[in-house]
Amino acid sequence: MTITILTEKELRSCVEIDREAMEAVAEGFRGLGRGEAVMPPILRLDVKEANGEMDVKTAYVPGLDSFALKVSTGFFDNYKLGLPSLSGMMTLLSAKSGQVEAVLLDNGYLTDVRTALAGAIAADALARPDAAVAGIMGTGLQARLQLQALTLVRPIQRALIWGRDLMKAEACALEMTEKLGIPVQAVASGEALCAEADIVVTTTPARSPILEGKWLRAGMHITAMGADADEKNEVAPNALERADRLIVDRTSQCASLGELRSALAAGVVREDQAVELGEILVGKAEGRRSSAEITLCDLTGTGVQDTAIALFAHRRALERGFGTTIKT
Amino acid sequence: MTITILTEKELRSCVEIDREAMEAVAEGFRGLGRGEAVMPPILRLDVKEANGEMDVKTAYVPGLDSFALKVSTGFFDNYKLGLPSLSGMMTLLSAKSGQVEAVLLDNGYLTDVRTALAGAIAADALARPDAAVAGIMGTGLQARLQLQALTLVRPIQRALIWGRDLMKAEACALEMTEKLGIPVQAVASGEALCAEADIVVTTTPARSPILEGKWLRAGMHITAMGADADEKNEVAPNALERADRLIVDRTSQCASLGELRSALAAGVVREDQAVELGEILVGKAEGRRSSAEITLCDLTGTGVQDTAIALFAHRRALERGFGTTIKT
Repeated sequence: MTITILTEKELRSCVEIDREAMEAVAEGFRGLGRGEAVMPPILRLDVKEANGEMDVKTAYVPGLDSFALKVSTGFFDNYKLGLPSLSGMMTLLSAKSGQVEAVLLDNGYLTDVRTALAGAIAADALARPDAAVAGIMGTGLQARLQLQALTLVRPIQRALIWGRDLMKAEACALEMTEKLGIPVQAVASGEALCAEADIVVTTTPARSPILEGKWLRAGMHITAMGADADEKNEVAPNALERADRLIVDRTSQCASLGELRSALAAGVVREDQAVELGEILVGKAEGRRSSAEITLCDLTGTGVQDTAIALFAHRRALERGFGTTIKT
Repeated sequence: MTITILTEKELRSCVEIDREAMEAVAEGFRGLGRGEAVMPPILRLDVKEANGEMDVKTAYVPGLDSFALKVSTGFFDNYKLGLPSLSGMMTLLSAKSGQVEAVLLDNGYLTDVRTALAGAIAADALARPDAAVAGIMGTGLQARLQLQALTLVRPIQRALIWGRDLMKAEACALEMTEKLGIPVQAVASGEALCAEADIVVTTTPARSPILEGKWLRAGMHITAMGADADEKNEVAPNALERADRLIVDRTSQCASLGELRSALAAGVVREDQAVELGEILVGKAEGRRSSAEITLCDLTGTGVQDTAIALFAHRRALERGFGTTIKT
């Protein structure tokens, strides 16, 4: 028996934000939508002494030869050690025998990619076909990746960036103008951003809302991907109330960790209003029903995305002869 | 940053069933007993199509520099593929930064060792000091390892083995006689075994009891380590009822996966009768109170054992210069 070890550098050269990787992740969502995927609740460990946490996700998707176990860590005092806060790795196991097939030492890179691709999949399923103006709230890595991913699925002609720190928004706008070759501008308020954007993606760790329901306009699509914990909340409950269609990656997760949680607590939506993205992808549920509807998608990140991207990365790496082989 | 990859062969040459490894695992239990350890519920994934399951355990023990994430798989049709049913690996992460430090490709070896050592720790804390006759129920790998581990903590002069298949019990007895240099005999019934044994360890995947309460004698100690799922049950509820002291590795786990589950369902014990092994080790609870008491310990396997043995193995491996270093 042999196991393949892949490093972040190797994985970065194999996997990027493109249609092929997006299709792999969409297939994971479809497995969830068909009701076939087995996805246990997230395992979470807190290390309070180091202001740290570990999340472990997994999912088995019938039809795929392997499944991933994904570890993400966030140790928020790491800046004192000169280290990034976020890290992690994935393990790929055979769905036939349970044997470990590969260890993907990605330091969180594949999570970044599959998270951005989920944003593209949501926009592809839900945004108006002619959506041309993207609005990104937040100025971090996901702000950049989500914008890039949107360009895969919609004819994005320009983009707006808002952040609490205008300087950071301007730096992000400059960088993305160069990278994507379209005008990207910083804006001073979320309201100004919503006044122009056809698609809004919120990408922050906010604990109180940065997006208000009254800013929404007919025909908009919103993806909220920042909240993944029970203290986070980017989107005001009145925005979920106002949306015509409320979509989630996984209802049970969103009800406890996502935007759905705050809206349920506020009593302005019911859990049975939420439709899962995978159900839309397989035709079991309706997405957008008219060009005037407001669609809002709450993403918390799922194990099926991890399994999908890990398999995709492993296959690409093997094709290209990457990896260190360990005899066990 | 570098990560160390250790293979099963390397780990086998670093870690065996000895006092030093036992002390490391006992320290894990003490962390649990002091109420400091953080140990989330087990994450379990079922892969029904392949008659397979994955269990993921973890625990953070304050004072230890790292914590482990342990993956165990059991794919029970693997014999058709010529592969062992059980497999798995451990990942060691820094408790300071959350960074991956080492990947221990042990194929379940460290789990086997820490499971056997827990049996020794339980016997050391609970069996009469003069316990000299060991009785092992079951004829698999844990039957062998549990018996070996008992010899670390009590002056075992002879041992009895019972199994549903007498031929297997005889083969196991012969092998252990040679390995340990003491007489080990197969016996035809659990009752005959209990008539002579001072310490009984049950090591089977039984789904209906193999040990009856009426067979217990004053002064005996029983460790039941086979049950770790809600369909398993080795020890009749009347044996838990009859025991003077009921000890568990983790109350919440044993109440849902261990022998405690069946006894609670039968209504013959209360959950608050169970005392955790770690609480006894740190002096927060009493163990055996007289040489006449019957003590019974229900072990389901805990994340603190995994963290303890993974750290121990990693330290030994580094001291001996083992491992493949991967730059990340």
